[in-house]
Amino acid sequence: MLSRLKHLIKNKAKLFTKRKILFRPNIPEITPIFIEKANIPFQRRLNLLIPSLNKEHMFGGIATALSFFKSIMEELKEDQNTAFRIIITDTVVPDRDITRKFLQFKITNKEEGSRFQILPFGDRLDKKLPVIEKDYFIATAWWTAYLAKRIIKQQEYLYKKKHKFIYLIQDYEPGFYNWSSRYILAESTYQNSENTIAVFNSSLLMNFFREKGLCFWKHYYFEPRLNNNLRQFLTLKGKQQKEKVILIYGRPYTPRNGFELVKLALEAWACKDSRARYWKFISVGEKHPPLMLGPQKMVSLGKLPLEEYARWLLRSAVGISLMISPHPSYPPVEMANFGLLTITNKFANKDLSCWHTNIYSLDSLEPEALTQTLKKLVSLFEKDPQKGIKGQDLTGFYLSENSTFPFLQELIHELFEET
Amino acid sequence: MLSRLKHLIKNKAKLFTKRKILFRPNIPEITPIFIEKANIPFQRRLNLLIPSLNKEHMFGGIATALSFFKSIMEELKEDQNTAFRIIITDTVVPDRDITRKFLQFKITNKEEGSRFQILPFGDRLDKKLPVIEKDYFIATAWWTAYLAKRIIKQQEYLYKKKHKFIYLIQDYEPGFYNWSSRYILAESTYQNSENTIAVFNSSLLMNFFREKGLCFWKHYYFEPRLNNNLRQFLTLKGKQQKEKVILIYGRPYTPRNGFELVKLALEAWACKDSRARYWKFISVGEKHPPLMLGPQKMVSLGKLPLEEYARWLLRSAVGISLMISPHPSYPPVEMANFGLLTITNKFANKDLSCWHTNIYSLDSLEPEALTQTLKKLVSLFEKDPQKGIKGQDLTGFYLSENSTFPFLQELIHELFEET
Repeated sequence: MLSRLKHLIKNKAKLFTKRKILFRPNIPEITPIFIEKANIPFQRRLNLLIPSLNKEHMFGGIATALSFFKSIMEELKEDQNTAFRIIITDTVVPDRDITRKFLQFKITNKEEGSRFQILPFGDRLDKKLPVIEKDYFIATAWWTAYLAKRIIKQQEYLYKKKHKFIYLIQDYEPGFYNWSSRYILAESTYQNSENTIAVFNSSLLMNFFREKGLCFWKHYYFEPRLNNNLRQFLTLKGKQQKEKVILIYGRPYTPRNGFELVKLALEAWACKDSRARYWKFISVGEKHPPLMLGPQKMVSLGKLPLEEYARWLLRSAVGISLMISPHPSYPPVEMANFGLLTITNKFANKDLSCWHTNIYSLDSLEPEALTQTLKKLVSLFEKDPQKGIKGQDLTGFYLSENSTFPFLQELIHELFEET
Repeated sequence: MLSRLKHLIKNKAKLFTKRKILFRPNIPEITPIFIEKANIPFQRRLNLLIPSLNKEHMFGGIATALSFFKSIMEELKEDQNTAFRIIITDTVVPDRDITRKFLQFKITNKEEGSRFQILPFGDRLDKKLPVIEKDYFIATAWWTAYLAKRIIKQQEYLYKKKHKFIYLIQDYEPGFYNWSSRYILAESTYQNSENTIAVFNSSLLMNFFREKGLCFWKHYYFEPRLNNNLRQFLTLKGKQQKEKVILIYGRPYTPRNGFELVKLALEAWACKDSRARYWKFISVGEKHPPLMLGPQKMVSLGKLPLEEYARWLLRSAVGISLMISPHPSYPPVEMANFGLLTITNKFANKDLSCWHTNIYSLDSLEPEALTQTLKKLVSLFEKDPQKGIKGQDLTGFYLSENSTFPFLQELIHELFEET
């Protein structure tokens, strides 16, 4: 009885300590940005609001946002009246190898009249953001849109003019959270959108928003394209035999890639199907400890240099890449185009099986269903090792080399247009 | 440069350590339950699958599940052919003060033929669950439903008969997770529901499922009722003056109660409205450190004994209780019925302003909107301190003393009916 009591007290104390550590009732990423009037030797300025320019944050989303901004700059390069500013909202010091790609930009906290400025604004206590009458904003993640809306409100108050802003939407971001304050705040950035010009990464995502009844003043979209550095390896497809390798897009620290489900499915297959022992299980994406799956081992290679990644795409016969989101995500489409028989999942309006004949898109991600499909693909490969090589792109756009953002001129026109 | 490099290496090492600790690619709550044939001296048995019988887990959901099971037992008490078993799926030892409420139950791992059994099955390595032909199951949280479906599949294999099961649904549980493996698995328990009898906690929740297109073989629902121990204090309403107290349902460790939003709104109000200094900010729900809100302090009382909670309900003029879910949740309705002018939020089909005239239900939970409504309620109270006292219940069911589960007879009949 006494030991039981002690146990209870200890447990309670543990819970209390744990909770005290967990007590963080703040949402630092929405720390307000207050503005002040400014003058610069340019008529107008285009501002990219971006969480970070640090290498460790250079996941697909931020890289695409930068490439989008560069394309806009390219479009406006003749216009000497327009300045450009990258406002970093979350971090303090950008990485040199990122800013090297923005050579003409000056990293500075001061309003110096340079046409190209990088302004780290993560540490903004007692600071104000200098804003001219014609500062225009591009948001790239929900909290940058949250900030943009409030900056524009202050700008309207100062200059009596309300601008539109561009919101680059690359996922339905409330889905990154459980039902919580951040879920609500992320969702709020899609509401009251009478001055939002949405630019969607993929028509699938755009249609997901439409089906949710989320409307914007205007909207544009662009579709995923094969990475140009991968493209050069595509000609090697079929030149070498496919091997019994299951290539897994393994990101245990990115919940929407459903790593646990893949693990459960592979484990069940490895334990029950004697063919499994002839297959290699290779995980690429995020480096993680090796994983025993029954008698088999999954080896993690982490994030590979593009050439090595291409080599694995060329070698592997079967691919698994889940994405619990309406966004198509790149790896399953890359796998399919490199001739892997590829498992991914449906989600809401997303069904990638109409993107490539090599994609097997699951209705249900219950581990049993995943195991079943894996067995099927292994059989298909054993019956015809050329099957994946013969697969066909069905999108028409994925392999295209035309401009990714053909709508830029119209977009810029609409942004600058006064209402 | 060197220090920068050191910094980078240190950061990388930190990330790596953090990740290694975070590498938990398992979902322990769905550890399979394997079954074996059994014989007991009863024709059939009703099994409640419940995560825990421990005091610290006795939140609303588990308490309601136990009360639901007790009502079914009551309904079947004359039926000496039916045995009852509570299977604890997640923990190993139940708490004595909980099991005291189930005096007739024997806590045992063995199949001994007792009519009332509590079986702790959290530690189930190398164990099998004894199952008779007519074992019926009641699931109470998504992973217990996940297990129930797989137990029934095995039972069908052993006995060539597939039973229905009851699924007590008290929230849309995928919403407890970000888009992830658990989100997918929770969602899967609402699919392929041809043998599921759903029992919803509230018509609001039932309609949310319906609007999502989620259907079950049969469904029932029950509505929230005023807690019987609170009821006795309701007669004291209006006997004492309401004081300038804002009562907050403050649960910083329960994301769906949106604690951060409440904090942001109160802080903005306390900093900008000179009236705020005359008000007390009292948080009840989960104990947390006191919180400075500009010049004001929020005091946390934690989970109060019911009588003390009732005293605060009687004293306080204004209430704030958010619930980011289609479930109505109890505190805002309690507050309203005790005469507090109460702020809560809409969510999908939920709008509690038609449940009570004291409820102010927000479309948007942006902190600015919350602050606005708070100001409004403070003004309303200052203009007429009796306003909340005069408020009216609009549901017709909340104050009723009739049975909470009037459908039990039909439900049991349907469960036992052979298809």
